[in-house]
Amino acid sequence: MSLRARIDSLVHSRRAQVFITGVILFNAFILGLETSRTVMAVAGPLILALDRLCLTIFVIEIGMKLFARRLRFFADGWNVFDFVIVAIALMPATQGLSVLRALRILRLLRIVSVTPRLRRVVEGFLAALPGMASVFLLMGIIFYIFAVMATKLFAASFPDWFGTLGGSAYSLFQIMTLESWSMGIVRPVMEVYPQAWLFFVPFILVTTFAVMNLVVGLIVNSMQEAHSEESNVATEAYRDEVLARLIAIEKRLAEGAGGGGTAADESDRRAG
Amino acid sequence: MSLRARIDSLVHSRRAQVFITGVILFNAFILGLETSRTVMAVAGPLILALDRLCLTIFVIEIGMKLFARRLRFFADGWNVFDFVIVAIALMPATQGLSVLRALRILRLLRIVSVTPRLRRVVEGFLAALPGMASVFLLMGIIFYIFAVMATKLFAASFPDWFGTLGGSAYSLFQIMTLESWSMGIVRPVMEVYPQAWLFFVPFILVTTFAVMNLVVGLIVNSMQEAHSEESNVATEAYRDEVLARLIAIEKRLAEGAGGGGTAADESDRRAG
Amino acid sequence: MSLRARIDSLVHSRRAQVFITGVILFNAFILGLETSRTVMAVAGPLILALDRLCLTIFVIEIGMKLFARRLRFFADGWNVFDFVIVAIALMPATQGLSVLRALRILRLLRIVSVTPRLRRVVEGFLAALPGMASVFLLMGIIFYIFAVMATKLFAASFPDWFGTLGGSAYSLFQIMTLESWSMGIVRPVMEVYPQAWLFFVPFILVTTFAVMNLVVGLIVNSMQEAHSEESNVATEAYRDEVLARLIAIEKRLAEGAGGGGTAADESDRRAG
Amino acid sequence: MSLRARIDSLVHSRRAQVFITGVILFNAFILGLETSRTVMAVAGPLILALDRLCLTIFVIEIGMKLFARRLRFFADGWNVFDFVIVAIALMPATQGLSVLRALRILRLLRIVSVTPRLRRVVEGFLAALPGMASVFLLMGIIFYIFAVMATKLFAASFPDWFGTLGGSAYSLFQIMTLESWSMGIVRPVMEVYPQAWLFFVPFILVTTFAVMNLVVGLIVNSMQEAHSEESNVATEAYRDEVLARLIAIEKRLAEGAGGGGTAADESDRRAG
Repeated sequence: MSLRARIDSLVHSRRAQVFITGVILFNAFILGLETSRTVMAVAGPLILALDRLCLTIFVIEIGMKLFARRLRFFADGWNVFDFVIVAIALMPATQGLSVLRALRILRLLRIVSVTPRLRRVVEGFLAALPGMASVFLLMGIIFYIFAVMATKLFAASFPDWFGTLGGSAYSLFQIMTLESWSMGIVRPVMEVYPQAWLFFVPFILVTTFAVMNLVVGLIVNSMQEAHSEESNVATEAYRDEVLARLIAIEKRLAEGAGGGGTAADESDRRAG
Repeated sequence: MSLRARIDSLVHSRRAQVFITGVILFNAFILGLETSRTVMAVAGPLILALDRLCLTIFVIEIGMKLFARRLRFFADGWNVFDFVIVAIALMPATQGLSVLRALRILRLLRIVSVTPRLRRVVEGFLAALPGMASVFLLMGIIFYIFAVMATKLFAASFPDWFGTLGGSAYSLFQIMTLESWSMGIVRPVMEVYPQAWLFFVPFILVTTFAVMNLVVGLIVNSMQEAHSEESNVATEAYRDEVLARLIAIEKRLAEGAGGGGTAADESDRRAG
Repeated sequence: MSLRARIDSLVHSRRAQVFITGVILFNAFILGLETSRTVMAVAGPLILALDRLCLTIFVIEIGMKLFARRLRFFADGWNVFDFVIVAIALMPATQGLSVLRALRILRLLRIVSVTPRLRRVVEGFLAALPGMASVFLLMGIIFYIFAVMATKLFAASFPDWFGTLGGSAYSLFQIMTLESWSMGIVRPVMEVYPQAWLFFVPFILVTTFAVMNLVVGLIVNSMQEAHSEESNVATEAYRDEVLARLIAIEKRLAEGAGGGGTAADESDRRAG
Repeated sequence: MSLRARIDSLVHSRRAQVFITGVILFNAFILGLETSRTVMAVAGPLILALDRLCLTIFVIEIGMKLFARRLRFFADGWNVFDFVIVAIALMPATQGLSVLRALRILRLLRIVSVTPRLRRVVEGFLAALPGMASVFLLMGIIFYIFAVMATKLFAASFPDWFGTLGGSAYSLFQIMTLESWSMGIVRPVMEVYPQAWLFFVPFILVTTFAVMNLVVGLIVNSMQEAHSEESNVATEAYRDEVLARLIAIEKRLAEGAGGGGTAADESDRRAG
């Protein structure tokens, strides 16, 4: 057994996975403590050292996996994910990249790939997305149309809300979630353009209806999967057996009656 | 082959459709750029020229279709739609019609008629509407009743919200979406009319319940369609075959036993 | 044919119903016009006269029905409803009863009893209510408990929101609809009682979950009704026929083979 | 019959339960009256005396149950619940424990354990929870990740909303319920960090999608339970009978035809 194979089996062993799970949870706890000024004032250096220790463990783990599997390591999406978030943590935390420091807590997401039950839930979520692609595309078209129109119509008077295409899209997203759509946005707009409700009320009706259809589609899909998995296998087996037995009885009766041409009869009946 | 037929086949060819799809998307992109002050400052004339080019292509396309099909062109709803939105773009963009300029982005909707998958989604949306007509009618009646009452009761003290029938309907729509209904509208109204909650809370309960029933109806309908399409054909075929085989067995047994009057027996049993 | 019978058949004739439907719609339109200051300034007396005419027609209609059916008139709930809303309109519209004048638009609800399709939708709504009674009762208990607690805890500092039991119930209803619950109510409360979220967040979770269960129950019920109506009758008939035919075949075979004790065999098998 | 057994049967008798139900409802009414300043001013001492009377009855009831069942009393969760809420009421209502006084209204919850129909609804609610555990866990992880990130990113500029981990979690819960998320929180944040929507919009999309999946899961589960309970028992019985009859017919035919090797045939067919 080569060194590569030995490291591969070590790093993928049950014990190593439990250890890494523990490190993930401990690191998430440490990163939570880091948000507290009081804790950082008292035990700041210890916290940072522990975080660096966790990071070192992750780097060693990924280094070993990389050594063991070489480029095949990147074939698994979750390995790529691990690699990226550890790489983020290794970047120098300069002023402009303070966002990258905040992204370190994404490491906690590794808990999903380690826990089969959570992985199945996430896979279920992701599996539902392709069936919703057409409706999402349609909603994208609707958003683009309404955002362009809103910018052309209202940019001059309401630059904060509808000044740019992106700003309009954000405001329309807010309106779609029904947050302060009337008191916050449409009533002020209607003071300048009294007919503005002709633009916003249809937008709300169309997007709400589209979202409703998304939910209905999701329910119908889930129901059909649950339904077919459960009962259809049993039904198929039962039906096959009933038909096989009926054919056998007929054949035996035909033999008993000594009749010819049975095969032809049967194929006639099937064709009909 | 006449000129008309040749133009008809040219304009409905696969290649022409792909070209028109490209023009639609390019035009949508151009109209998006038009919303940006910076882009317009730099390349305004070019953008407008490209938009006019796209429009010219649409005019030529529709002109060719009109020439090829004459009045039958208007038999297809999507052709009428194309005609209307191109006609809007040709109108002189005077001050008062700046809304018409904003409507030009509606051309992007043509992408739906060109993409079969999106067309099916939209058709699915539209197919769901007739089943909801009764509930919509009922909600219209409820809105009219509550709008008349709100105007009579609150117009004097709250002319901004309930001054006219239309204003009341808009405010009630806002309340139905639960946007700022209490802090924004009902609490101020209750300072003048302390019993106003007796009007608004039932309105919220009734309309929310009606919307809930709309969603439930949509789910049940979608489910039944999905269900019946899928399994019932197989079930019907299976049942017909089982019954045909059972009848054949009985007939054969009756023949073997040399019995008369079997047809009568059978019709008795079926009638029972 | 007595006078009573003749009036009864006249007032319940198809023609009379169409006429009354027309009067209802016309009256609703008139009552809508009454909300407009401009229209009332121009044609006020005409509008009021037309409203009085509609009312007179309703009074005559109900008078005739009362004469024809005497006390049996009140056996039908919709007749009682008609009687009450016409009686409301006949009351003197003194200052304190301006609410009664606003209630006159409720006459439009008579359109529901006249239109079979709308009547079925309303009956469907009402039929769904008893199945939701337990959850409604539970929500009433939850509301009462939280309203008493909120009044005891927050009445001193926030008399506007939680000063009385009724005021607390209203504020909690607002919070349940998620309207301004945090920015409008809970954040200000938390400035005085920092732990107040321990009261409000569980309230939101519990009531949202209860409402979710209401919706789920409604969906499941609707689905089961739709399902059983549709397919079960056909399935029952098919199963009965298959079993009848199988029993007949067995009986015939038993006769053919000249065997005794078949009835016993069969009952054995059924018992097993 | 010992004293213990006699007290046990007395305290669990139908009559005692009806009496206790009445006391619970009366006590809830009394505690409701206690929230009214006017009532307390007029009849304060009477109200308090009646509350103390109800409490005394509960103490005696629980004392008798404890005497009758000794430590087995605590085996039933509802008994523990009763014990705790009565114990709360017996605590001295000092200033700091005014919350405990407010908790006395929780006694009304005992009505659920006394009413079988309500108990079933609550059990239905609780039964739905375990199936949602994975999604809840996932939402907990999402909340923790976003709360840590929000605190790191926005604590400096917005200490009121994102100053601590708990404060961020509360703000994110508010945003998840879509309450004032844009006008109240995200727009002000975007004035300092213009890219903040890249944090909040994905958060809204992810949590909304997770909640949607919770609801869908709840619907599918309820539907499957309702479905399987109803129809599957009948189907199983029918299928078993059909197969038993078919096997009997084949056996009889095989005997009649005097053929050997039937058992082998049959097992072949089953295996196929």
